[in-house]
Amino acid sequence: MNSRSEFEALDAQDELAPWRDAFELPEGVIYLDGNSLGPLPKAVVQRVQQVVQEEWGRELIRSWNTADWLHLPQRVGARIARLIGAEPDEVIAADSTSVNLFKVLAAALEMCPGRAEVVSESGNFPTDLYIAEGVVHHASGERVLRLVSSDQVLEALSANTAVLLLTHVDYRSGQMHAMQEVTQRAHEVGALVIWDLSHSAGAMPVDLNACGADFAIGCGYKYLNGGPGAPAFLFVARRHQEAARQPLSGWLGHAQPFAFESGYTPAPGVDRFLCGTPGVLGMSALETALEVFESVDLQVVRSKSLLLSQHFMELVESRCAGFGLELATPREARLRGSQVSFAHPEAFAVMRALIAQGVIGDFRAPNLMRFGFTPLYTRFTDVWDAVEALREILQERRWDSPEFQQRTAVT
Amino acid sequence: MNSRSEFEALDAQDELAPWRDAFELPEGVIYLDGNSLGPLPKAVVQRVQQVVQEEWGRELIRSWNTADWLHLPQRVGARIARLIGAEPDEVIAADSTSVNLFKVLAAALEMCPGRAEVVSESGNFPTDLYIAEGVVHHASGERVLRLVSSDQVLEALSANTAVLLLTHVDYRSGQMHAMQEVTQRAHEVGALVIWDLSHSAGAMPVDLNACGADFAIGCGYKYLNGGPGAPAFLFVARRHQEAARQPLSGWLGHAQPFAFESGYTPAPGVDRFLCGTPGVLGMSALETALEVFESVDLQVVRSKSLLLSQHFMELVESRCAGFGLELATPREARLRGSQVSFAHPEAFAVMRALIAQGVIGDFRAPNLMRFGFTPLYTRFTDVWDAVEALREILQERRWDSPEFQQRTAVT
Repeated sequence: MNSRSEFEALDAQDELAPWRDAFELPEGVIYLDGNSLGPLPKAVVQRVQQVVQEEWGRELIRSWNTADWLHLPQRVGARIARLIGAEPDEVIAADSTSVNLFKVLAAALEMCPGRAEVVSESGNFPTDLYIAEGVVHHASGERVLRLVSSDQVLEALSANTAVLLLTHVDYRSGQMHAMQEVTQRAHEVGALVIWDLSHSAGAMPVDLNACGADFAIGCGYKYLNGGPGAPAFLFVARRHQEAARQPLSGWLGHAQPFAFESGYTPAPGVDRFLCGTPGVLGMSALETALEVFESVDLQVVRSKSLLLSQHFMELVESRCAGFGLELATPREARLRGSQVSFAHPEAFAVMRALIAQGVIGDFRAPNLMRFGFTPLYTRFTDVWDAVEALREILQERRWDSPEFQQRTAVT
Repeated sequence: MNSRSEFEALDAQDELAPWRDAFELPEGVIYLDGNSLGPLPKAVVQRVQQVVQEEWGRELIRSWNTADWLHLPQRVGARIARLIGAEPDEVIAADSTSVNLFKVLAAALEMCPGRAEVVSESGNFPTDLYIAEGVVHHASGERVLRLVSSDQVLEALSANTAVLLLTHVDYRSGQMHAMQEVTQRAHEVGALVIWDLSHSAGAMPVDLNACGADFAIGCGYKYLNGGPGAPAFLFVARRHQEAARQPLSGWLGHAQPFAFESGYTPAPGVDRFLCGTPGVLGMSALETALEVFESVDLQVVRSKSLLLSQHFMELVESRCAGFGLELATPREARLRGSQVSFAHPEAFAVMRALIAQGVIGDFRAPNLMRFGFTPLYTRFTDVWDAVEALREILQERRWDSPEFQQRTAVT
């Protein structure tokens, strides 16, 4: 593949191409950061307006019933359930990913008395590690957080492992764990597993129940396009729901929230993982953003994602050869998620120059440029154009020019 | 005061009257439920549209910096600080009231080792009690939640009290605690105090620092008009900020969230009480809703609130006499917040009939009708008209009529 026209041909055959029109995408921008903040689905504009002006503005308090705001967590959860191989009554949308991790990790730990360790990867997304620290510090009994490198996770499992906490797709390298195998190995030693799906839900088919997963959490604003700081979600396998007790026992997780009893009785099922009043604006945006996925086959999404990222890797390695870029993402399809990262000594400056050029990816310290591939709106020609922009920047060392430095000084 | 014209005269002199135009209020509705969900400030409509279409839609990920989404919690917190007698660096907006209570109660408990009791009122808003149960259950050491009736709070304080947790204004009766005196008495026994300001922030001047308060939490969607499920807030007195450690140690509470370190180091100051990514839509709506308060004097708000509620009590007791209504709110101004509740054996049915008539208050089990008075948009004539509607409903026992029952059956 050595010319733009070959990529144009791929776009012409792409069955997902029409979905691009479901999103607002600014002119002149190639957006390769949907793995950090998904773009605005057009349908969300009107939906948010309706929630604000009609449901809030006109119906006021009555909308808790008439618009059923009250069950937004369950409705949104059910839409997400389809994407991650769960039953509708196993998933709710609520709070942030961090808060949800606190709930499920605390619950899982209580279910494993006598086992000391929470095992995770040292390269896991920091908030997961920070929350795990918080849970372990406040948990009853002797508990420790044990961090190991990615390739030592399976060896680290033992009869002393209470919970294995892993992010399915690594936020830096894009490396993907074999969910089924890892879950099974953890179960063999009697541990529970929590999967963070922040970088996989909506990007590829995930099948939690087929893998026998225990708990999962994930983000609403990346591949699910729910908007900045969108509510997150959590999954609790049905078999654990009655035993699981989480410490953030707020009123919406009560068996009868509106009976205003003074003692807490957890709701049956996954609802006990709710806490306070849901943010209706954010929930509604996410609910509408998820409509796209009702008619999309995630297998098709995955196939295109792998093609996009494969072409990207190949083009960068051929057309940007000799500029010091080093692939930081596994080449093998089964080992990678929906992003590609390259290391470069000047990664920060190069990414800044790319963004100034309209190619938006992101930088992860110390030296990674990260590019996300989101098949619903990323075109094959975007891959070609992004690599060309990168090649020109590297060739000209554009970030060194005084003109560029001046132009980006205030941005 | 025996005629509508006298109330018209009060409206004509009311210096807050022009503020009504800052809100969207549906025709034919008298809204006495702003203490449950504040109405839509007109400025919020456009602001939300701008956040969705421009900041999210056009600027995408860049808005974390260009629109400074990242500091929404601090910006919104600073606006709330003005209303509650706090410094800007003592308040942040984040999460829900329940989640924030979990954080500050867990932190406060850790600061009081060797004291067993969290004291609260048996009539406190249930989510506060449920969260306290959760914190106590998961806390290290022997901790118990001790619930006493409202008038026994001071007697219950002892050298064994770690934390006193009170809601400033009771959600049912509208009874208000003497914040300064209670705080002082708790400090005399060496306890810390957490004030829940859900029913007072924005309704009256609150002066946390003058009262020597330790911690506070509160709601964004009642008197602050931030929208359904708006983010909540929390206050940590400056003198406690360095010692306080909260268990929900997510990345935005880290000293350097974007350094992506694997170990948690709490941010200096109140920022360590942040957890996950803020919900930008809800935060932005709340930020704009708070603009109204930049130019309003809460003393004036309080004076009008007391007048409104006093007239309401008097009118109900004179014009609805003999229909079995019983005042459940203290008559004395210094003892009541910004709402009035009446008990009635048919409270649920009467409130349903009132709502059908366009007078929106709410029902609290088992037998309370609750009416909130929100001086920025409630008129004196609204008080007259609401009482007239109530009188007619009671006189006709309208909720008994088959016509009414049919009409409200599906709503």
